[in-house]
Parts: sequence; C-alpha cells; structure tokens
Amino acid sequence: MAKSMMLLWGSGSPPCWRVMIALEEKKLQGYKHKLLSFEKEEHKSQEVLEINPRAQLPAFKHGDIIVNESCAACLYLENRFKSQGSKLIPDSPAKQALMYQRMMEGVHLTDKLNSVVYYDYLVPEEERHDSALKRNKEALTTELQLWEGYLQNVAAGSYLAGPFSLADVIVFPNIAYAFRFKLSVERYPKLAKYYSLLKDRPSIKASWPSQWFATPQGDDALKDV
Amino acid sequence: MAKSMMLLWGSGSPPCWRVMIALEEKKLQGYKHKLLSFEKEEHKSQEVLEINPRAQLPAFKHGDIIVNESCAACLYLENRFKSQGSKLIPDSPAKQALMYQRMMEGVHLTDKLNSVVYYDYLVPEEERHDSALKRNKEALTTELQLWEGYLQNVAAGSYLAGPFSLADVIVFPNIAYAFRFKLSVERYPKLAKYYSLLKDRPSIKASWPSQWFATPQGDDALKDV
Repeated sequence: MAKSMMLLWGSGSPPCWRVMIALEEKKLQGYKHKLLSFEKEEHKSQEVLEINPRAQLPAFKHGDIIVNESCAACLYLENRFKSQGSKLIPDSPAKQALMYQRMMEGVHLTDKLNSVVYYDYLVPEEERHDSALKRNKEALTTELQLWEGYLQNVAAGSYLAGPFSLADVIVFPNIAYAFRFKLSVERYPKLAKYYSLLKDRPSIKASWPSQWFATPQGDDALKDV
Repeated sequence: MAKSMMLLWGSGSPPCWRVMIALEEKKLQGYKHKLLSFEKEEHKSQEVLEINPRAQLPAFKHGDIIVNESCAACLYLENRFKSQGSKLIPDSPAKQALMYQRMMEGVHLTDKLNSVVYYDYLVPEEERHDSALKRNKEALTTELQLWEGYLQNVAAGSYLAGPFSLADVIVFPNIAYAFRFKLSVERYPKLAKYYSLLKDRPSIKASWPSQWFATPQGDDALKDV
C-alpha cells in the first residue's frame, strides 16, 4: 500500500513533518519520497506543480488520489487506514470534539508563528514596522499561553486531546519549531514538557527534519515571546 | 438533542454561518442560539468568554462539549450525527480525500479574503501600504482563479467534491461574502454559478445572515480582484 504513495517534502516544514508523522503512525513506512530544497526553489518545480498547483510542499499522492494540504492528508490517512497502526481519532464524542478543536487551532497557530519567525521574509523591507512585529509577537504570546493552559495534565501523559492523536500530529511540529527558534523553556514549562515527552516518540524521531541534525538551533526569533 | 445545543453567533461571519448550515443539514433545528453584535463588541463579553476563551464567534456548546472552531464544529456534528440529515463526508476514499482537501483550502481562502476586505480594519493607519494591499489583492486573484478551476463541472451540479459536502459548508459562506463585496460575476463565472445554485438550498436559505437582508451589498472591496 505504502509503495503507491509519493511524498515531495521540504526539511523542517511543519506541514511536511505532519504528514510524515501520520505515515509513521499508520505503519506506512516504505512510501516513496523526495526531499526538495526551498532555498533552491525546488518547490516551484514542474515536478511539484504536477501534484500541487499551489507550488507548495508537501505534495502528496496515493495512487491517483492527490491530497496536499497537511491536515487534509492526515485526515485522509487516518480514515483510510483506520484499523492500522495508532488510532488517531478517538471514538468518544467528547474526546473527538476536543481533538478536532485542537487540531484546527493548530492551523491558526502555524500562521501566528510564521508572522514572527518569518516576518522579514514575508514583509518587504519598505513595508516593515517595528510596531507590526511587536503586535505579532504579542498575539503569539497570548496564543502560546492558551496552549500552555491546554497542557495542564501533560506530566501525566495527557497530550492535547488525551492519548496521542491527530491534534498532536498537527501541533507538535509547531512546538518543536518554536523551541528551535529559542522559545523560553522557563516561561512555557508545560509546552517544554510536551516537547520533551514527544520528541523521542518513534514516529517523531523517525521523521525528525534531516536539516535540523546539521543545525540544531535556528535564530533567536522567539527568545522574547 | 438540538435543545442541548447553544450557539452564540454574529451575523454575516462566515465561520458562524458554516456551523449554522451544518446544523440545518444535520436536521438539528431547534438548537438554542443568540445573535451578538460585533459592533457593540459583544463577542468580548463574559458570556462568550465562558465558552470561547479566544473571545471569538462562533461559540458553540452541545451539553458539556465545547467546540468553537468552525471546521472542528462541523466535523464534530457530521461525525456525531452521521446517519441524520445529509451525509456530508463521502464514503469513497477518492471523494473523501478531495473533500478534506477543499475543506482545508477553504480555511486559507478565508484569510486571503479578509486580508483584502478588512485590510483597513486589520492594519493600523500608519502601517498601511498601497503596495501591501495590491499584493494581497493579487494573491486573492490567484486564489480565486484556482477555485474557479475547481468548479469546472458546477453547471452539472457537481460542487466542490461532487454532491454537497462539508467542503461546501465551509467554503460557500466565503463565496457569498466575496460576491457581497462585489466580486465580478463576469470574471468568475463558475463561482457565480456555484453561488446561484447554492443560495436557495434550504440549509443556506434558512441560515442566511439576517443583517444581509437589511443591507444586501457590502462595499466594493473586491470589485477589481
């Protein structure tokens, strides 16, 4: 089954990493994949465009089925391989509701992280304002404090919606990314605990961004958040 | 069942409208609800904060279950009431993949629309740049052209993932909103057809934003997109 899958990915991209974690959790090792370079703009290549008209990574194909958006791909994989590997959507309605809620909030968390970490990349020099970056940082602080609150019971092994779920598949790469860019372990102890508990989970370890081994730390964009 | 549900909503908000369409489609009429005013900042009231710590609408509760993010609420409702009302997630893996893909792309479409329609609201006066608004409009044009392409077979009644689905629940309010802000019917004929076919669907008609009856048109923010 995995042999008819093809993933084009970029190292360190949280959306790509989500799909890779889901593939590991669903025991779909052996899928075909190709690492492309954002720096060389390989995500804009014909090879990508044929799968993803947005020229973005991940670009993911399973046989004739194309599903590129990372949450969509994870939902597809879980529903298609329900009884294989980890169960990523809980059965209980209350847990399911919480899982969907955190998963979707994770999508918005990505945008808020990017608005700080990639501010200079996203905004042309003549349009940059210290006041705008400051506001983005404040919004991110408020956001991260919410997540800190969501993880009150993390030390007891309760992740974003109880046992490991799609919510963690979607959100963990964001949190790893935040600590890579020097988020304070002291100010966010629950998030730090969450990170330290999950970083050695087999699916996450197996898909750890290759680029991060060479350069384990990013710049200090999130130091004062 | 519907009687134990409470929806706090704002008129004309696409995320609120999504949940209302889903409730209609799942035959959950009779749910409790309360219309709040964004202008009077009622979304920041204690009543909202008790359900939604983000101080955003929708705020939705079903018994003790809280699920506020609009896609999460729609996924919850469809899965909880699978055999009731319309079937909003197709069974076939290929159609399901397409449905999740379009649904999630719809989330990003909302952001792109807001970055143009609400530019002045989102960006303080001293940080506004014509070049930034122009870039946002160009990105929105590219985005809307993709959606125009997704709807090649709309005249034959094929919506975003074939029959009416969660993808349409999520995306239709964005499209209605775009035409309200004077998106060109000539430049986007498939989107216009999609709009005209779905606007009289019972679930959509029953949940049509009350505010829009009084002021059927917004400003012309999208006239030249």
